[in-house]
Amino acid sequence: MSTRSEASPEQRVVELGLEIPDYRDPPYGGRYGRLKAYHRIGKLVMLGGITPEERDGTRIHPGRLGEDLTVEQGYEAARKAAVNCLGMTRLALGSLDEVASLARVQCFIVATPDFDQHHLVGAGMTDLWLDVFGEAAGMAGRADIGVVSLSNKNCLELWLTLESKSAPGGG
Amino acid sequence: MSTRSEASPEQRVVELGLEIPDYRDPPYGGRYGRLKAYHRIGKLVMLGGITPEERDGTRIHPGRLGEDLTVEQGYEAARKAAVNCLGMTRLALGSLDEVASLARVQCFIVATPDFDQHHLVGAGMTDLWLDVFGEAAGMAGRADIGVVSLSNKNCLELWLTLESKSAPGGG
Amino acid sequence: MSTRSEASPEQRVVELGLEIPDYRDPPYGGRYGRLKAYHRIGKLVMLGGITPEERDGTRIHPGRLGEDLTVEQGYEAARKAAVNCLGMTRLALGSLDEVASLARVQCFIVATPDFDQHHLVGAGMTDLWLDVFGEAAGMAGRADIGVVSLSNKNCLELWLTLESKSAPGGG
Repeated sequence: MSTRSEASPEQRVVELGLEIPDYRDPPYGGRYGRLKAYHRIGKLVMLGGITPEERDGTRIHPGRLGEDLTVEQGYEAARKAAVNCLGMTRLALGSLDEVASLARVQCFIVATPDFDQHHLVGAGMTDLWLDVFGEAAGMAGRADIGVVSLSNKNCLELWLTLESKSAPGGG
Repeated sequence: MSTRSEASPEQRVVELGLEIPDYRDPPYGGRYGRLKAYHRIGKLVMLGGITPEERDGTRIHPGRLGEDLTVEQGYEAARKAAVNCLGMTRLALGSLDEVASLARVQCFIVATPDFDQHHLVGAGMTDLWLDVFGEAAGMAGRADIGVVSLSNKNCLELWLTLESKSAPGGG
Repeated sequence: MSTRSEASPEQRVVELGLEIPDYRDPPYGGRYGRLKAYHRIGKLVMLGGITPEERDGTRIHPGRLGEDLTVEQGYEAARKAAVNCLGMTRLALGSLDEVASLARVQCFIVATPDFDQHHLVGAGMTDLWLDVFGEAAGMAGRADIGVVSLSNKNCLELWLTLESKSAPGGG
């Protein structure tokens, strides 16, 4: 029986039963204009903004923390967006097993002025990556920022930077 | 007759009639304190925050999306700030022809809680860079974030990362 | 008598009487979940989000600019968070003398829609780093972003990128 420390990230997502979206089909970038999914410089991998949307545009928990969403719903949305990040990372690197380490992530959360539990929402992102990659590679720096609104009423958006095991073209 | 695919970025900005500000004169950083315009590590180029302001402090469309600004005005402001990014990039690299590729950009947009068209505003930035650099080098990852206010009533601010063809000191 | 240009950053913090928190004891990341403090790729150093909190969770000036905080209090909070950044940088590099240069910083400031002096708040961060590192290494690119709320009523959060003199494992 495999444990987290033995299983590769690609094995872990199977064990966890995660449904990771395929950003090749349909190609990334249609709904929000001519955008690319990621950019790589050496081992640095920078992803574009990622929301808790399905590939067909369906959103998980549109709304606002502190008003019409609970912290639990925010956590679920962050976890969903984090699964989307796995799909974007697969698109960038070919396989999750090519991830050396998460670097850091900003979690922009639509919230009211009185909301003060942003960190319990953002944890939905980093907990998922810890589940998949373990402590050594899955731990991230993070900031959780309460914002006023996002495109299409999304309740949060992630901005992720990570490190790949190898650089494009060697390195 | 040159087409986009044949013309260099510096030729394209002439064709497009873009007036790109010169951040050497007056030197960057006076109005907002002792700040620098950019930092380079290898081929990674990180610009400081860029607003839709003229060098003399005149702002295009100060205000708030969803309240006193239309999406079209927001798009114009993003395009103006994107032209300013060209000036900052020239300052950093000497020439736009030294840009290997746009990496990604955050577009912080002053908006109301009900506004949900942030992506149509942010497109003003990325469309301009696509016009100048073409699909291969001009495509970016992007996030559009609705924020509550910015310095001097600016309606948006860009946070841009790009890749240069060569690294300072070789590479 | 030493002047800024002669003293090393570690000497400067002594001269300035700065009390820099030790993020090894207690270890970073307890209060906001399983997070890491920083990530390094080559000479690139990326810190996680940093607030004006003491290690015991005490916060300087919780609240909102334009409502219950003055610009001076915001500046003090930014300066406090900047001192925390020194602690995080020591944790990452072992010594402040290993900093080659500040790259850039985002200052997310909890503010009202009418507030427009964000740059006078963010200056508290960059002025402190200029005091410690001098113009050559301490100057940063910056963006000051007015946001709606942050975890635990913090009034601001910093997102800092810098360059180290050497890369982990040589370089």
